[in-house]
Amino acid sequence: MRDAYHEELDSISEGLVDMARLVGSAIGRATTAILDADLKLAETVIEGDKKVDDLQHDLEARAIALLARQQPVATDLRIVVTSLRMSADLERSGDLAQHVAKLARLRFPERAVPQDLHATILEMGQLAQRLMAKAAEVIITKDVDLALQLEQDDDEMDLLHRTLFQHLMDDRWKHGIETAVDVTLLGRYYERYADHAVAVAKRVVYLVTGEHADELQPEIPSVTGVEGA
Amino acid sequence: MRDAYHEELDSISEGLVDMARLVGSAIGRATTAILDADLKLAETVIEGDKKVDDLQHDLEARAIALLARQQPVATDLRIVVTSLRMSADLERSGDLAQHVAKLARLRFPERAVPQDLHATILEMGQLAQRLMAKAAEVIITKDVDLALQLEQDDDEMDLLHRTLFQHLMDDRWKHGIETAVDVTLLGRYYERYADHAVAVAKRVVYLVTGEHADELQPEIPSVTGVEGA
Repeated sequence: MRDAYHEELDSISEGLVDMARLVGSAIGRATTAILDADLKLAETVIEGDKKVDDLQHDLEARAIALLARQQPVATDLRIVVTSLRMSADLERSGDLAQHVAKLARLRFPERAVPQDLHATILEMGQLAQRLMAKAAEVIITKDVDLALQLEQDDDEMDLLHRTLFQHLMDDRWKHGIETAVDVTLLGRYYERYADHAVAVAKRVVYLVTGEHADELQPEIPSVTGVEGA
Repeated sequence: MRDAYHEELDSISEGLVDMARLVGSAIGRATTAILDADLKLAETVIEGDKKVDDLQHDLEARAIALLARQQPVATDLRIVVTSLRMSADLERSGDLAQHVAKLARLRFPERAVPQDLHATILEMGQLAQRLMAKAAEVIITKDVDLALQLEQDDDEMDLLHRTLFQHLMDDRWKHGIETAVDVTLLGRYYERYADHAVAVAKRVVYLVTGEHADELQPEIPSVTGVEGA
C-alpha cells in the first residue's frame, strides 16, 4: 500500500515536470511566432494550452484523491499541497505563453515587435524558456543550489525589462502608441512568466529545507521603475 | 472533537472574508491615491499589504495543520483545498492593489492618470472594489446566483478596459508614451484584480455544486483586442 502511495506521489511529480516542459516549449514557440509573425506557430501555442490545462486538472484530481485516500501527514502532506501550488504556477505560465501567441495572431500579418526591440524580446523569450527548463530540473533533482540560482537569473529578466522600458521612454521612440502598448504588455507577460518559474523553484526549496527561499537569500528589489511591470 | 474541527473550518472561512475585505479596501484606496496623487494614502496601501500576506500565511498554516490533524475527506477536504486556492487569489489581488499604489507613488507629485481618463479609471477602481465585496459575500452566503452574477459584472470590466484601449489607440492621444505605458499597466492591474475576485466566487460555486462555474455558464470571450490585457 505504501509503495503504491509513493508511486502516486512520484507520478504527481512527473506530471509537474511534463507541465513545465510543455509551457517551456510554449514560451519558446510563442516568442518565435511573435518575432517572425508566424500565424501557424502561434496557433500551435494557443491550441496547445488546452493540453496544459488538462494536465493540471488531472494532476489536481490525483492530488486530492491521494489526500482523501492516504491522508498523508508531515513531509508527504507538504509535498502534495505544494504540488497543487506548483501546478497553478505552471498553468498560469502556459496562459502567459498563450497571451504572447495571441498578440502575434492579433497583429498578423504585421510584426508586433519593431526591429530595434527584436533582440531584447528574443533574449526575454530565451531566458524565460531557460528558467522553466531549470525549474523542471529543480523539480526532478530537488537541487536547492540550482533553485536559488533561478533567482539570480530572474535579475537578468529585470535588466532586460529595464532595457525595454528605456526604449519605450526614449524621446526617439517612433513606433507609435499601439506598439508601445503591445511592448508594455509583452514585457509584463515575460516577467510574470519568469516569476512563476522562480516560484516553482522556491516551492521546491521550501519542501527540501522547510524554509521559504526568501529566508535563505534576500530578494533583490525590482530595477524597473514601474512595479510589477 | 468534531465541533472543534468545524469551528476551525469556519475560522478559515472567516480568514478569507477578512482578506477579501482588506484587499477590497486596498483597491479603493489605491484608486483614490492614483487619481488624487495622494502619496500618504498610497503608502497606507503599500504598507497594508503586509497584513494581507500575514493573514494568508496564517490561514495556510491553519489549513495544512487541519489537513494533518483531522484528515478530512469528501466535502470537507474540498473546502480546505479550495480555501488554499482562494487565499492565493486574494493575496494576489492585494499585490495588484499595491501595484496601483506604487505607480501613484512613482509618479508623485504628478498624476499618473490624465484628466480625460479619470472617470474610466475611477469606474474600474469602483467596479473592482464592488466585485471583491460581492466575492466576500459569496464566501459568507455561498450564494451560487450571486457568484454567477460576478461573471456578468466582469463583462463590465472588459467594457471599461476596451474604453481605455480606445483612448490609447485614438490618433488624438496627446499624453505621450510614458502615460500610455502607465495606463496600459493600470488597465491590466484592474482587470487581473477583477479576474481574481471572479475566481474566488467560481471556487465557491465549485464547492457548492461540485461543478466548475464554466460548466454552468459559458465564459464570455474578452472584448478587448489584446488578450489578457
